[in-house]
Amino acid sequence: MAELKAKARAEGLWNLFMAHGDWGAGLSNLEYAPLAELAGQSIIGPEVFNCSAPDTGNMELLALYGTPEQRERWLRPLLDARIRSCFAMTEPEVASSDARNIRTRITRDGDTYVVNGRKWYTSGILDPDCQLIILMGKTDPEAPTYRQQSMLLVPRNTPGVTVLRDLPMFGYTDRLGHGDVLFEDVRVPVENILGGEGEGFALAQGRLGPGRMHYAMRAVGFAERALRLMCERVTERTAFGGPLADRGVVREWIARSRIEIEQVRLLVLKSAWLMDTVGNAAARMEVAAIKVAALEVAHKVVDRAVQAHGAAGVSDDTVLARLYAITRALRIADGPDEVHLRTVARQELAPYKKKTDTKAGAA
Amino acid sequence: MAELKAKARAEGLWNLFMAHGDWGAGLSNLEYAPLAELAGQSIIGPEVFNCSAPDTGNMELLALYGTPEQRERWLRPLLDARIRSCFAMTEPEVASSDARNIRTRITRDGDTYVVNGRKWYTSGILDPDCQLIILMGKTDPEAPTYRQQSMLLVPRNTPGVTVLRDLPMFGYTDRLGHGDVLFEDVRVPVENILGGEGEGFALAQGRLGPGRMHYAMRAVGFAERALRLMCERVTERTAFGGPLADRGVVREWIARSRIEIEQVRLLVLKSAWLMDTVGNAAARMEVAAIKVAALEVAHKVVDRAVQAHGAAGVSDDTVLARLYAITRALRIADGPDEVHLRTVARQELAPYKKKTDTKAGAA
Amino acid sequence: MAELKAKARAEGLWNLFMAHGDWGAGLSNLEYAPLAELAGQSIIGPEVFNCSAPDTGNMELLALYGTPEQRERWLRPLLDARIRSCFAMTEPEVASSDARNIRTRITRDGDTYVVNGRKWYTSGILDPDCQLIILMGKTDPEAPTYRQQSMLLVPRNTPGVTVLRDLPMFGYTDRLGHGDVLFEDVRVPVENILGGEGEGFALAQGRLGPGRMHYAMRAVGFAERALRLMCERVTERTAFGGPLADRGVVREWIARSRIEIEQVRLLVLKSAWLMDTVGNAAARMEVAAIKVAALEVAHKVVDRAVQAHGAAGVSDDTVLARLYAITRALRIADGPDEVHLRTVARQELAPYKKKTDTKAGAA
Amino acid sequence: MAELKAKARAEGLWNLFMAHGDWGAGLSNLEYAPLAELAGQSIIGPEVFNCSAPDTGNMELLALYGTPEQRERWLRPLLDARIRSCFAMTEPEVASSDARNIRTRITRDGDTYVVNGRKWYTSGILDPDCQLIILMGKTDPEAPTYRQQSMLLVPRNTPGVTVLRDLPMFGYTDRLGHGDVLFEDVRVPVENILGGEGEGFALAQGRLGPGRMHYAMRAVGFAERALRLMCERVTERTAFGGPLADRGVVREWIARSRIEIEQVRLLVLKSAWLMDTVGNAAARMEVAAIKVAALEVAHKVVDRAVQAHGAAGVSDDTVLARLYAITRALRIADGPDEVHLRTVARQELAPYKKKTDTKAGAA
Repeated sequence: MAELKAKARAEGLWNLFMAHGDWGAGLSNLEYAPLAELAGQSIIGPEVFNCSAPDTGNMELLALYGTPEQRERWLRPLLDARIRSCFAMTEPEVASSDARNIRTRITRDGDTYVVNGRKWYTSGILDPDCQLIILMGKTDPEAPTYRQQSMLLVPRNTPGVTVLRDLPMFGYTDRLGHGDVLFEDVRVPVENILGGEGEGFALAQGRLGPGRMHYAMRAVGFAERALRLMCERVTERTAFGGPLADRGVVREWIARSRIEIEQVRLLVLKSAWLMDTVGNAAARMEVAAIKVAALEVAHKVVDRAVQAHGAAGVSDDTVLARLYAITRALRIADGPDEVHLRTVARQELAPYKKKTDTKAGAA
Repeated sequence: MAELKAKARAEGLWNLFMAHGDWGAGLSNLEYAPLAELAGQSIIGPEVFNCSAPDTGNMELLALYGTPEQRERWLRPLLDARIRSCFAMTEPEVASSDARNIRTRITRDGDTYVVNGRKWYTSGILDPDCQLIILMGKTDPEAPTYRQQSMLLVPRNTPGVTVLRDLPMFGYTDRLGHGDVLFEDVRVPVENILGGEGEGFALAQGRLGPGRMHYAMRAVGFAERALRLMCERVTERTAFGGPLADRGVVREWIARSRIEIEQVRLLVLKSAWLMDTVGNAAARMEVAAIKVAALEVAHKVVDRAVQAHGAAGVSDDTVLARLYAITRALRIADGPDEVHLRTVARQELAPYKKKTDTKAGAA
Repeated sequence: MAELKAKARAEGLWNLFMAHGDWGAGLSNLEYAPLAELAGQSIIGPEVFNCSAPDTGNMELLALYGTPEQRERWLRPLLDARIRSCFAMTEPEVASSDARNIRTRITRDGDTYVVNGRKWYTSGILDPDCQLIILMGKTDPEAPTYRQQSMLLVPRNTPGVTVLRDLPMFGYTDRLGHGDVLFEDVRVPVENILGGEGEGFALAQGRLGPGRMHYAMRAVGFAERALRLMCERVTERTAFGGPLADRGVVREWIARSRIEIEQVRLLVLKSAWLMDTVGNAAARMEVAAIKVAALEVAHKVVDRAVQAHGAAGVSDDTVLARLYAITRALRIADGPDEVHLRTVARQELAPYKKKTDTKAGAA
Repeated sequence: MAELKAKARAEGLWNLFMAHGDWGAGLSNLEYAPLAELAGQSIIGPEVFNCSAPDTGNMELLALYGTPEQRERWLRPLLDARIRSCFAMTEPEVASSDARNIRTRITRDGDTYVVNGRKWYTSGILDPDCQLIILMGKTDPEAPTYRQQSMLLVPRNTPGVTVLRDLPMFGYTDRLGHGDVLFEDVRVPVENILGGEGEGFALAQGRLGPGRMHYAMRAVGFAERALRLMCERVTERTAFGGPLADRGVVREWIARSRIEIEQVRLLVLKSAWLMDTVGNAAARMEVAAIKVAALEVAHKVVDRAVQAHGAAGVSDDTVLARLYAITRALRIADGPDEVHLRTVARQELAPYKKKTDTKAGAA
């Protein structure tokens, strides 16, 4: 991995995700999309190019909202891949896709914040190079709903941070781990707040947009790779008197996969272009749409490829079994599909509601 | 209708489909796509703008392959909407999506061709203005597979042409009719051949590409219209304590409809652009893909809109019931989905087959 | 039809649906199910055996809740098929699947009830033999929610009853019509109430259970017939070098159809048996389940059969196009799927809710 | 496990699967089905009751086809759970769902058979108690297609048997392992043949029928358990202003799950009853149908339950993630769905083919 990273960096294939020219490649989302798709064809691809979650989102947060001191201490080494980071948001005890449910408390005590709570699926925290946790918690439960949360920079080695266990995803433990993490009276200086008290929700919204888009881009890569593996397999394997590739049902899997991939890639590109041109907030519906659509397509194509591989499809002799688990898990990560579909429906219905309201108002 | 046509023509919204500048608007497929989508939002829209099947395909055939005399006699009045035409290809007795199955015989007898056979779903033949039948038949059953067929220009009033009945599509009879047509010793002069003997299959391929694309473009319009009707309805109707628009299942219908429409429209545009840039033949896979994808999306969205309308959805008080029938029928018209999926699969698998063949050849 | 009816009656195949031995065959639901499935294979089948909606449900209502006079006047001739009847429940202006929305008013005026309102999809009202309308309306909008409605026996020829038009279902007009009916100051004597004021909702629940079950039974018949037609067609038709029956995709349609039909038929039988043994009320969840499941299966199988038939599948040369329309419409008639799914979910979740409530209560 | 087994045996809950009274409980398939469903609600359930694959199928083979000596040596200790066994059929290098593809060779050399080949997904071989391998291989590649294969009893500790690795299923390694097994010049006495040379295919057919049925029965148990977990979860969790159980989309998941489970359980019971009454061979279509249907339902229900659990659904804090992997893998194990669907389609089409042949014969 270190060697691959060095090579990638030497070739200039480094921090390509970073739209802010001062800090990285300065590519637009539209320019980055095909590169992310290519990198996504390999599971370790994104890491090789220092474009892997959760570091990407964390670097963006620091670039946009970090103080000069915060950037110096954390962003620079992350951009150089000297350290890694994680993002502690999801909680085991509540449906944390609704940010209002978050229970982890951040309380001020003089010059320090004190954190108490439990987070899980904190990805990357088990990486020995992980030195930074960006944590989402509640600073003020009495504030208006979307002003209660704040983000805090917590050094990984702060006393009170305990990784209880490494969580699997469908039986797979990730190379860099998904932590179940306890925060007990964890103290950090007040200057470690990111953006300011009550900014947590807004920052999370900003962070998650590009993150979802990156997942969608990679998902297209997953799907392309699965389709290629399926085509190779069915061309080589023979059963019941001919290659699997001659069977009508298999051909329909392949045709539908190609059609679905083509469509969803175009929507990825359109959504990326919208983020570039109208901004993440205005493109929120499209980002929600593409998170759902791309992962669904990827999972469907991988599912067919698994089936076409028979027993090999569930083994670890191909990447397919792992992709099957990843693509399924990603329909939950970063918000389950249902939350994103709500977003799309709300925006679609908005003009009609207004009409009704206007009528009602006139009456 | 006549009034609407006059208005459309006066506004220059006429023959927009015709890519050949000498004869029509000279728009590229990419330019025409959004217009066709808009026209498709109304069932009679395409006819108003003189952009409706089967005339469009027939005009293209005449523009591309007609002799000057043929163009003068048929193309000019078609472009002016003074006459209408039909295309007699599908046969009731065979699976005519496989052109090799076609049974209608065209035999030469001196200076005339004699046609015998039966065609059905010959759309438009019951229009009183219909004066031209373009007929596909076999001139030489002994020729190589794709050189057996020819196309013939048959004046509608030629003796021996009998319309047996007007065929319905799911209970709907079309304004201009779908004829079940008998050809008995129908004689036309030899100069009425289009393109030449044995050219029928090639001409049909050329004709069907744009035709399928036009259906796909219109299908996006159908879907948009159905989604709009659904949104209006669920905003207005109340059941079980609130507007239907607040129900999660309804919201998911709306969200999924929007996501599917966005994707398929982009693939329509890409396919249109490919037809413009690499040509109909090279874009054959994309055209096959989009025929399947666009009609599927349209039918799904219409289906949800029907359900959201309750009994009104199956009545004729909205356009939805008719759209439900049309979108379902179009999954069969111009070749059933399965034939198009074969085309997509064949192209997708082609590079793998070659590899295998090369290996085998090397062995 | 009259001849077929006479023949059926002579053979004792008459009023088989009627579970009450005094009035009909006295078969249990479980015994009737296979007969209803067989009758359902023909669209006119149920009528031939005097087992067709809406008469069946109406006869049941009269048998169970009618006074001796009501039975004498209406039930006897219905059982003899000397007259026919209709059921006026659905309204165009509200989501009447929520009975609380019903707007048609029944007001008492001395010895008469006066009806004002509009109903639609009142099936059978255009039959010249139709002499009875069973109407659901609101007698007391101030009563508790499920005590506001009453059912009234309205002679078809009562002044003030106007059939505005015959409504289609996906382009098909039914032999006996679906009326759009206006009730303007329609007066009937007070003894024409069925069951009593405020009983309407309870009666409707009782009526709809067997009705839904009958639809489900027939739907299995539809599906069997469609599967048989599909198998015949694909065995006979040849394309691309062999019979359609040899194509993998077609074979999967057939296999899945068979598997789905087998499952759903067994659930029909189980639900019928539950109605027989624990009663319609206790079997409410199963009846809701089977209404949804049977129609879905029927529509899916018919859809595949349509596709396998090509253009013939959308024509009227086979029964498939009509079955396609009917099976789709029946996913809305007698309550849309979504209402029935709510019923199933509510019952499934009931024990868990109780647990939660108990816990909460203990706290 | 040993303790649980002792307890189960003491209660008489032992070898319930074994239809042959001399050797086990003597229950019919229909009687066993609900027990297998219950046992299937726990992943270790079947083993506790000595009813787990592959031992069940192996015990049946020995009971039906073993010589008295073979039964004494292997069947008795298997029935007592003193030893365990495995079944070596699937091969990594060919599509072994087509038995004709099997490559492992069994050659006779005097009084011994010599085995050479490679098998994988040989489940249970890594269990320290595993002492018997039942192996399928080719004794005579020149024999008629279905007489080429034979089954051999290979003691686990025979020289030349090497377990190369323990194979995962979607990241999970099973407690008792799925071996990738090399057979190099493995010699066993000729009396270790099961049934006789050339009987392998017939024995496999006989063995796989009940095995598939057992999977189907267990799958219903998986689905019930997943539905229960989902109902519990959504009743307890709150998001966006209410319990998940109040959300329409979640309710539809629950309703559809219940409807699907009810249907598929009934088909399991019918198929079991057919095996009891007409025999495994005559019930072959139903067994194929139920293998496909039960696993599909189980996987769908588990999928919804995973989604309803959010991150917990992909973790190992519930059984759902493992069930997701198991139910997916079982759509491949014992023959992929596509092979079973072929079986169903062939039988469904058989009467139509005959008609065609008869017609052709008459012509």
